[in-house]
Amino acid sequence: MKARIFDTTLRDGEQTPGVSLTPDQKLRIAIKLDELGVNVIEAGSAITSVGEREGIKKIVSEDLSAEICSFARAVKVDVDAALECGVESVHLVVPTSDLHIEHKLRKTREEVKRTAIEAAEYAVDHGLLVELSAEDATRSDYKFLKQVLSEGIDAGAKRVCACDTVGMLTPERSYEFYKGLTELGVPVSVHCHNDFGLAVANTLSGLRAGASQAHVTVNGIGERAGNASLEEVVVSLNSLYNIKTDINFKMLYEMSKTVARMTGIYLQPNKAIVGENAFAHESGIHADGVIKKAETYEPITPELVGHRRRFVMGKHVGSHIIRKRIKEMGLRVDDVRFEQIFARIKALGDMGKCVTDVDLQAIAEDALGVLAEKPVELEELTIVSGNKVTPTASVKINVDGVEKVEAGVGVGPVDAAIVAVRKSVKDIADIQLEEYHVDAITGGTDALIDVVVKLKNGDNIVSARSTQPDIIMASVEAVLGGVNKIVSDKMIRESENKE
Amino acid sequence: MKARIFDTTLRDGEQTPGVSLTPDQKLRIAIKLDELGVNVIEAGSAITSVGEREGIKKIVSEDLSAEICSFARAVKVDVDAALECGVESVHLVVPTSDLHIEHKLRKTREEVKRTAIEAAEYAVDHGLLVELSAEDATRSDYKFLKQVLSEGIDAGAKRVCACDTVGMLTPERSYEFYKGLTELGVPVSVHCHNDFGLAVANTLSGLRAGASQAHVTVNGIGERAGNASLEEVVVSLNSLYNIKTDINFKMLYEMSKTVARMTGIYLQPNKAIVGENAFAHESGIHADGVIKKAETYEPITPELVGHRRRFVMGKHVGSHIIRKRIKEMGLRVDDVRFEQIFARIKALGDMGKCVTDVDLQAIAEDALGVLAEKPVELEELTIVSGNKVTPTASVKINVDGVEKVEAGVGVGPVDAAIVAVRKSVKDIADIQLEEYHVDAITGGTDALIDVVVKLKNGDNIVSARSTQPDIIMASVEAVLGGVNKIVSDKMIRESENKE
Repeated sequence: MKARIFDTTLRDGEQTPGVSLTPDQKLRIAIKLDELGVNVIEAGSAITSVGEREGIKKIVSEDLSAEICSFARAVKVDVDAALECGVESVHLVVPTSDLHIEHKLRKTREEVKRTAIEAAEYAVDHGLLVELSAEDATRSDYKFLKQVLSEGIDAGAKRVCACDTVGMLTPERSYEFYKGLTELGVPVSVHCHNDFGLAVANTLSGLRAGASQAHVTVNGIGERAGNASLEEVVVSLNSLYNIKTDINFKMLYEMSKTVARMTGIYLQPNKAIVGENAFAHESGIHADGVIKKAETYEPITPELVGHRRRFVMGKHVGSHIIRKRIKEMGLRVDDVRFEQIFARIKALGDMGKCVTDVDLQAIAEDALGVLAEKPVELEELTIVSGNKVTPTASVKINVDGVEKVEAGVGVGPVDAAIVAVRKSVKDIADIQLEEYHVDAITGGTDALIDVVVKLKNGDNIVSARSTQPDIIMASVEAVLGGVNKIVSDKMIRESENKE
Repeated sequence: MKARIFDTTLRDGEQTPGVSLTPDQKLRIAIKLDELGVNVIEAGSAITSVGEREGIKKIVSEDLSAEICSFARAVKVDVDAALECGVESVHLVVPTSDLHIEHKLRKTREEVKRTAIEAAEYAVDHGLLVELSAEDATRSDYKFLKQVLSEGIDAGAKRVCACDTVGMLTPERSYEFYKGLTELGVPVSVHCHNDFGLAVANTLSGLRAGASQAHVTVNGIGERAGNASLEEVVVSLNSLYNIKTDINFKMLYEMSKTVARMTGIYLQPNKAIVGENAFAHESGIHADGVIKKAETYEPITPELVGHRRRFVMGKHVGSHIIRKRIKEMGLRVDDVRFEQIFARIKALGDMGKCVTDVDLQAIAEDALGVLAEKPVELEELTIVSGNKVTPTASVKINVDGVEKVEAGVGVGPVDAAIVAVRKSVKDIADIQLEEYHVDAITGGTDALIDVVVKLKNGDNIVSARSTQPDIIMASVEAVLGGVNKIVSDKMIRESENKE
């Protein structure tokens, strides 16, 4: 069995409050969706704005494999806008619930049905493939719903869709609901919203019942709690139901990242399949199990979806993972010292801290009595910035007893400070700032700011963090923490080579 | 029908990679969970660390209404640690799948079963209520699983639990799986993980099948993709299945916020029930519908869960909501000018920008030809900061042609700048910074930084934003944007009073 994927990231997904994509961003996402293998790309709602039409036209002109579709209300002006864009199909939507008909449209059932049929005929007459879609279908009179869709098919609609507009289906109801619609004799689309957290389960149920196409969005973005998430639907279909799709699974993580970056809607780490923690392990029991055999705590491999496995050290960490890390750092510890190190990591965890590589190394080296001093230490940092001065920073650092003074400018004071720091250490390490991440700051301007950096020096990559109320100091200390790690790694390697 | 809620936010939830709670944070969350009305609080895993035991002991000593439970592996040392903490019950966990038994524990089925029974007997003998729990139960031989649980009941376990450790159940399988366990004759707990996005649906299925207790976490946090989310489970039970719980729904949003703040695991805006967008509306069709009748696009009221409704202005905004806002701002526009304003907002949306109150006001006032100049303008901002100087800022601003110069110090340069700005405008507005939010920064130190502030002056609250690569300039401009809005609101009101 096989299911088709109708992706509405660029329409229902873009309707996420606060999200607006430029025509070029839409195009870039559409090209990626096409590579991913979705069958239909709902590129937008042509009536929305000039920019929206520009975006849809750009996508149409790419000549992608996927069917390019525009959303349209069942009115002539919407269909005309879609026609102007040159799309292959319209997702033609008409409300069928009395709630929507009476309170939103202030019409009667008969009027609404007539409008739907006329719009469908008009679209078909102008060469569009019509997917006739009932809005708020799951709160509609089922007989009326089927009547509207059935007359729409008579008018030329090639597919029908029924929307669970406010996400009120359950998996059981979804099965019965969509099963009834398959009697209409044309392909049926499932369109579920996530207000109760059930969009994915309801979509899967609808497909099991015989619907052939799922409306989904990347990362499950959309109005309110969003739509069924593409990645959860396709991976569940594959792994749990043995229903195939045309999706290239290996692109899922990258697709998710692209959409998050362009929409600014970042995922919580515990988002299924593509979240940062989806394949991360901390607790001793879990990490130990995964090291022995990954399947113990991973239902699918991260590679399947283009993701990666991560081990995190914290309060729940087990001794196996710490031993593994210390060994990777090139340190040799006996059992007594290991217990000391392990206890200190647990204690850090009890204080609410997560332990980075640099923390672990500092603890381990401290226990071993090596490198009690940091090779690189900040002596002075001075920042001058404002709206009429170029953001400027000077640093005085001490590298193994030798003072180095450097200055830098940047787009802002943080940038200037990091430029100065990089210059000041260039003789000992040519560091690249691979990643610079600041957690969202809420509260006030005196809130603690958590900066995590990932630095690269040759093929050595280290991460380090600093938490302070001053974003500049936090950024500088995180970078220097990473530099110290790089320098000590180097010293360890050099001393090993001498042995 | 009624279901019990076993909350594991402080155990499985805290096992989220990177999360560590201090004993005091654990206590604060536990007190709130108790107010929320959960039936069991799994306060932690006593064996984890000294701090963990301290946290559990603090919770026990609060004498809450909820049953306080500790996680324990089926080994004496874990049960002893739980006993030391004085908990009422243990969640006694033993793996039952061959995968876990052979690869993780490297034991035989018989050995594992004997261990489980001995640990259960030991715990019962020492006065603990035992909930015997099978890890990786859903990948276990069903007969062996039931045998272990059944012998555990004979040994004194009062409840049993079966964990879908890697989230591989489907709603259909969950129903059959848990139904079979109800034959054991004691209350059954459902424990689902979210690797495929189905934890909530699977939990609901298990309860429908006759299980009486759901293991959940606030915000669905936990290892990897997390656990079933408390808020989604209880609201779905209530609204979709008419199954009651003891949960005080009105506290759900606040509970979610507390856990997000303390764990640092912030939610994506489209998280169901408690996400920032769960009751937010942008698109014209939706906002229009909600204004006419909220049920058209809201399955439950935001008030039910202590949340609030929000309208967002962007590319998909409809004219109704813009008219409403302009009216609220005290501005009167004719139809021609309204169309100009509406077109400019759409154009901003096409450029990928979301429109704040301040943007809308600027556009509307511009169209009306009023207040072409901003009452308050920044002339000079100078910042000096570093590790050996107190972060200091001076500002020169122009208030209606009069120059004001002020200086301030703070915990960091952003704080200092805002202190100086607040001082400089104090004659015209006594502003309180109600909210200061910076989106997570990723990319590099030259990435664009988006600052949104909410300012309060008397009972007038406004929000404003600025996006720049320099966090200090972005913060200052956002605050000054808000100050300008407050000042013009005041001028409008004063001119209306004169009329």
